[in-house]
Formats: sequence, C-alpha cells, structure tokens
Amino acid sequence: MDEQAIIRVDQTVRKWLHADYDLMQKMMHKDLEVSEKTGPRDLVTNVDKASERFLIEKIRTFDPDAKILGEEGFGDCLTSMDGNVWIVDPLDGTMNFVKQRDHFAIMIALYQDGKGVLGYIFDVMNDVLYAGGPAVGVYANDERLTAPNNIPLSEGLFGASGPLVIGNISGMQEIIRHSRGMRIYGSAGIEFIHAFLGKTVGYSSFLKPWDFAAGRILAETLGLVVTKIDGSPLDMLSSNLVLVTTGKAQQDIRTIVNENV
Amino acid sequence: MDEQAIIRVDQTVRKWLHADYDLMQKMMHKDLEVSEKTGPRDLVTNVDKASERFLIEKIRTFDPDAKILGEEGFGDCLTSMDGNVWIVDPLDGTMNFVKQRDHFAIMIALYQDGKGVLGYIFDVMNDVLYAGGPAVGVYANDERLTAPNNIPLSEGLFGASGPLVIGNISGMQEIIRHSRGMRIYGSAGIEFIHAFLGKTVGYSSFLKPWDFAAGRILAETLGLVVTKIDGSPLDMLSSNLVLVTTGKAQQDIRTIVNENV
Repeated sequence: MDEQAIIRVDQTVRKWLHADYDLMQKMMHKDLEVSEKTGPRDLVTNVDKASERFLIEKIRTFDPDAKILGEEGFGDCLTSMDGNVWIVDPLDGTMNFVKQRDHFAIMIALYQDGKGVLGYIFDVMNDVLYAGGPAVGVYANDERLTAPNNIPLSEGLFGASGPLVIGNISGMQEIIRHSRGMRIYGSAGIEFIHAFLGKTVGYSSFLKPWDFAAGRILAETLGLVVTKIDGSPLDMLSSNLVLVTTGKAQQDIRTIVNENV
Repeated sequence: MDEQAIIRVDQTVRKWLHADYDLMQKMMHKDLEVSEKTGPRDLVTNVDKASERFLIEKIRTFDPDAKILGEEGFGDCLTSMDGNVWIVDPLDGTMNFVKQRDHFAIMIALYQDGKGVLGYIFDVMNDVLYAGGPAVGVYANDERLTAPNNIPLSEGLFGASGPLVIGNISGMQEIIRHSRGMRIYGSAGIEFIHAFLGKTVGYSSFLKPWDFAAGRILAETLGLVVTKIDGSPLDMLSSNLVLVTTGKAQQDIRTIVNENV
C-alpha cells in the first residue's frame, strides 16, 4: 500500500474504533454477562463479544479478502501471515474491565505479508487512541509522539505480569531488581502505552498474538525493540514470552536472561 | 472538634491542597532536582521539598500548637499521638513522579489524640481530591463515595508492593494466588484510592506513617479495615506492614498469613 492508501485505511479504522468506543460506553454501565474461559482469572463478557462482532463485521465489509484473527473466535483460523491479516483484541484487560471499569483497551492491527502496517490501542477510559505505523508515525489522538529516550534498564520502571514475577521465569526477579521497580497494570495495551510514553523502560508478559500485534507495530515505529524475552523474533501465530523495551535495556535484559537459562 | 469546626478545617485544608497543586503543576514541567535518599529506588526532588515546606507553613500558621510529621523532615520529631497531630506526605510516589509525571499524590492527615479526624489524598494528574473523615464522610471532589462491596479475596484484584511479592513476605504470593490477580501502581496513595473505589479488594506494603495516615482515615470511614498484615493494630509512629482491605478479605488473608508465619 502507498502512503495515501494507508491514510485512507487509517481514517476508516479510526471511525470504527470511535463507534466501538460509543458501543462500549453504553454497555459498560449496564449489568455485564461475565463468564470464565479457562478459569476465574480468564474472563469474557458480553462486551468483549459485541465489540469483536462489531469490528470483525466492519473489517469483512471493508477488506473481504483479508484474514482476521480475533480473541473471541469470531474471526478466521490463521495459519500464515500471507496477504492482509487483521488482528483484533476487542477488549484487552477484561479482568480490569470487570473489576475496575478502568485500565482496558481496544486493539486492532493490520499486517501485510507479515509486515506491520497500522496499529491501534484505544485507552478507553482516558479516551486516548494511540495509532499509526511505519509509514505515518505514531499519534496519541492528534498529537504526534516522539521516540522515548533509549535508557538502560537501571534508569526505568519495568512492567511485568504477576505469573512471570512469582514464577521468576527467565530471571524476571533479577530483571526487576536491576530496574527502578516493578509496575503491574493488568492490560497489555496499557503496558505498551506506558512503554511508548517512556513511563516504563519496558514490559514483559506471556502474550497471545492479539495482545501484542498492535503494540508491536506502534512500539517498533517509535524505535522500541519487540522480541521474545531471549531476543529472538516473535512468532505472530502463537503465544510468546514478549519483551518490549528500549534498545539499551534489551541488551541489559538479554544478559540477565542468558545467565538464568 | 464538633462537626462545624471540622467542616471549617476541611475547607481550609482544601484551599492549601489546591494551592499546592498549582505549585506542583508549575514546577513539574521544569527540570527537576532529583537526589537519592537511601538508594536509587528512594528519591526526593525539589518538588517534594517545596510541597512539604508550603504545607507545613500553612499548618503552623493555622494550628500553631499542633505537632507535624512530614516525610522530608521539615516537621517535628514525633514521640506520641497526643493532641493535634498533622501527618504530611508532600509527594507520595516520587519514583512515579520522576519517571512518569503520573500516578502520584499529595496526602495530609489530621489526628486528635490518636483518632483520625480528616484525611486527604490528592490524585494530582487526574485532578481528583479524595477527602473526608468519620464526621463528614468521604468525597471524591464533590461526589460522596459509598462503601465498596465487602467482597472476599477471591473476588478481587490485589494491590501489592514489588519487594513483598518477590520476597514472598507473610505468604504474599499465596495471598495473590487466592485473588483475581496482582496490580502494582507504585504509590500508596493511588493504591488506597483503588481500594476506596473497589477497583482492588485491598493493598499491602511496608509503609511509613505518612504513607498510610490519610488513607487509613478515609478507608476506615468507608468501612474498610486497616491493620498490620497479621490483623494487629497499626503503630502510628513507625513503619508497618500495612494491610487495607474489605472485612471479608481480611479474614481470608489472616488465615493465609497465619499458615505462613
């Protein structure tokens, strides 16, 4: 796609997201239908499902030949990243949504032949849409973001997930000891945003493709590095122990991870 | 103090806090002077100090016979809770302030003969002042808060501090496993606010008196329980491993703590 085509797609996706935001704002103040997927820490609600149905219908109409991967299963079964692939997380941070009505996001990513084109993370409660890609830059609503400072691990706060820390996976406790402290916000989208803004030096968690597809595009456009925790490339078709961080902190973390293999 | 006297004090303290907020907003966008207190995770800035000087001067003029305890040492050396005691945290969450310019608070508490009278937690970046006490109730700006639901540990997210989790102090990892998940926001004030709003079922951390003095008054007024982690009463003159939580979750946590002594 040339830049003009990307801008047209971008304007379309923004409209979908604002409409989905309105839908979510209406639904979230009514009683939720909450059910467990794999257990009490893995929830889905009627809002996740309505949001996914809404977004996938929009994508199908707009780009009928594309493949779509959605967290709640209304999309396709994805076996390759060939062609246009849309990856949708209709409500990232469902536990926060259920328990806090805060700290959650809507995420969409568009890849073409495996290359990230456009990514979107909508911080719903702050009403800020983080959007963009390599051809257009990254924006927080209408404000263009500059790259966060390339600081080492020792200069920043680090975002982690609870299970990684408690299980001390890949030396996570030592990674945190080398940082200025650990933060846990409970939504991959919100954690990616903190990394974009330099509020954390990085973030690591076990993530599914819909948890990191959009964040990866935006983070890489801002000069951050997004890989598996050992520095190897991400697999877009399966779960990864994802690390998003500055270039300098990635070196620091790789040293720690290698000592803890 | 009768209720009318408390209301007059409350109106005065609110004015100080809004003036301190303006001072902080001006200073935070200039270069900070940051120095370490006990190490790289324990910072103080020129803004912490200016905020404390400002608040302590206001309190001295308003209540000259009172004792004042302030984090940055511009107050008195406190040896008892007799009489009027003001406890000031001029900038709670200094690391967040330095690294994020977000997720920090100004806190003030007034105790009389050891009893909490008025507490204030000002969430600066959201511009919401949580204020009140047993005689007047608790308000978020002008909106009166109702008590959060008395849910058990298993139904809520739990706020913890990194060192407690990594050190697995008092069975913290098991406490978290019994909850819906762990969150870490990095400011006692912000964590107390999450408990007030029911966004977490509780919070635990090693805290100094200025970290919990205001939160305790507001939390107890809202029906939450604030004790040491083993359920014993807090010592207002020293550090405590503080637990603020719902009544039901306190029972759940006490069982776990007793099994991990």
